[in-house]
Amino acid sequence: MLENINESRTPISDLGEFGLIDHLTQSLSTHHPETLKGIGDDAAVLKFPDDQVQVITTDLLVEGVHFDLAYMPLKHLGYKAVMVNLSDVCAMNAQPKQVTVSVALSNRFTVEAIDELYDGIKLACKKYQVDLIGGDTTSSTSGMVISITAIGMSHPDKVVYRNGAQLNDLLVVTGDVGAAYLGLQVLEREKQVFSVNPKAQPDLEPYHYLVERQLKPEARTDIIKLLAELGVLPTSMIDISDGLSSEILHLTKASEVGCSVYEDKLPLDPQVINTCEELNLDSTTIALSGGEDYELLFTINQNDFDRIKGNPNLTVIGHINAPQDGVHLITRAQTQIPIIARGWNPLKSNAED
Amino acid sequence: MLENINESRTPISDLGEFGLIDHLTQSLSTHHPETLKGIGDDAAVLKFPDDQVQVITTDLLVEGVHFDLAYMPLKHLGYKAVMVNLSDVCAMNAQPKQVTVSVALSNRFTVEAIDELYDGIKLACKKYQVDLIGGDTTSSTSGMVISITAIGMSHPDKVVYRNGAQLNDLLVVTGDVGAAYLGLQVLEREKQVFSVNPKAQPDLEPYHYLVERQLKPEARTDIIKLLAELGVLPTSMIDISDGLSSEILHLTKASEVGCSVYEDKLPLDPQVINTCEELNLDSTTIALSGGEDYELLFTINQNDFDRIKGNPNLTVIGHINAPQDGVHLITRAQTQIPIIARGWNPLKSNAED
Repeated sequence: MLENINESRTPISDLGEFGLIDHLTQSLSTHHPETLKGIGDDAAVLKFPDDQVQVITTDLLVEGVHFDLAYMPLKHLGYKAVMVNLSDVCAMNAQPKQVTVSVALSNRFTVEAIDELYDGIKLACKKYQVDLIGGDTTSSTSGMVISITAIGMSHPDKVVYRNGAQLNDLLVVTGDVGAAYLGLQVLEREKQVFSVNPKAQPDLEPYHYLVERQLKPEARTDIIKLLAELGVLPTSMIDISDGLSSEILHLTKASEVGCSVYEDKLPLDPQVINTCEELNLDSTTIALSGGEDYELLFTINQNDFDRIKGNPNLTVIGHINAPQDGVHLITRAQTQIPIIARGWNPLKSNAED
Repeated sequence: MLENINESRTPISDLGEFGLIDHLTQSLSTHHPETLKGIGDDAAVLKFPDDQVQVITTDLLVEGVHFDLAYMPLKHLGYKAVMVNLSDVCAMNAQPKQVTVSVALSNRFTVEAIDELYDGIKLACKKYQVDLIGGDTTSSTSGMVISITAIGMSHPDKVVYRNGAQLNDLLVVTGDVGAAYLGLQVLEREKQVFSVNPKAQPDLEPYHYLVERQLKPEARTDIIKLLAELGVLPTSMIDISDGLSSEILHLTKASEVGCSVYEDKLPLDPQVINTCEELNLDSTTIALSGGEDYELLFTINQNDFDRIKGNPNLTVIGHINAPQDGVHLITRAQTQIPIIARGWNPLKSNAED
């Protein structure tokens, strides 16, 4: 899981900024005719046909805050950094088209290390047919910082905001939840084992899905296509990177509604259930508060239920209530517990839990 | 010149991420009808009429690398961070329309300090009629990082790239050069004086213009308007943030041409000349290699000379030659010296000079 140690170690200063940019971008190609100009000038140039809207989102990832290179290989980090932003584009019901990537790094990183990072970025761009159209590369006094801006296209009547949820709408989540957080717990445990006994060989196979969800999340562009195919336009949508409970509160607050979420409907992978038992954790708490799942949470009109029914990617976990009814979890024992934010807050020193 | 010390000091953790975003964005308004959605959702939404192109540029500014808070007040830093990006938009012959701003900061910064930073960002946005449409705010393990993406609009036949310079074109620079670098020298000298004698009162009045050019540069959106009014479409253009000599080389390399630059044509402010004498520096070297001037360098067809002649904002400093003639400075003594890159390289530990 550790960073590859290559024989060849070229200091970045050997290339210089422009040399490094050339080096990193020489194999890039673009996918869209509207990308008139990508990397190679002061700014990138995009062209738009009429009656389209563009969505733009940006994220800053800081070493020691958002990622730990002790167990996050650089290629995975690059891939994930792109996914984080594409997921935000998806959450607007838009298809991602372009990204810009800026990286600051200290002199402990070699060209080979940055290559690995960009391999992950390029892999993500290729897989999702996204053009890398610009960026900046510079030094930092300590650690690595990655800043990504993603751009997506949609139509004025197809963009979905957080604030459109209506009374009696169904609350739907994609995929399953809680696995990414547990993946992090497993990796942190292995890091501690490694620090005590560097010869220990971790057996991560029982946690394969959890670790993959943490290290290599995927943005749900497939859901955006699926919803279009099904003819379903969500009334509101958000991505659940900060944790399901936190995002439920964002959506209901923005929409000025209440909501009931059913504990027994929360979609959990069997590895989540097994690992929660092993680590003596409550799977519902993990599902609600874990974060980093990069799934989508949205609401649909009840009339659309038949169109999504039985789709393995989509799970109805609750419904929208009047605002005065509040936001609650209905437990398996049919008790009603207020949902409070427990998501990850990058401006506090630790996760609130 | 130092950061204000306010009585009230609210830790950022008191607000939390979303509280801080609310706090920072509550007074924001948008200027353009195409900004359908700015801050407040997963992504911003922009709409475009047909036959327009959008330009997008991004920059990452790192404390200790790009700025020193010992003499850069936070409000100036915020203003300058926006200008750096708007200047890149101008260099495409486009008008800036929107920016996203992301900031990572360590826990040594208070809410009041971030307010100052954003005051500068908002002032820049207001003055240049640019919409702040998104961003990210997070913690860092040390120091401050600012990432800005700027978006501008132009028309397909008006965008100007670096690579269009033609044989016999005139080389034009806007404003004057060298002042920002000298401003930095003056500020660093004062910082050293201050470290020896904290009671010393700096008299920066003789260097007023230099310090302003360093701390509060302006993007030349006025030049984009002026060129349109004059009916002049440059054949190539670049901004000279990295130093005139370095950018001349970028432009001529991209255009596959040579170039002669005349020492006696370089536009210098009287304070640059006086301060170079005082500090025993060669003003031509400073003008060519200083950097951070955020002026524009462009080429025009000789037939357009009459349209720009006599304009105090525009100085013809040379002309384009065949590629085999190379890139030279013609000195006052009529000797020919090859121009080599001496611009600032943020991936090396120090400026090359």
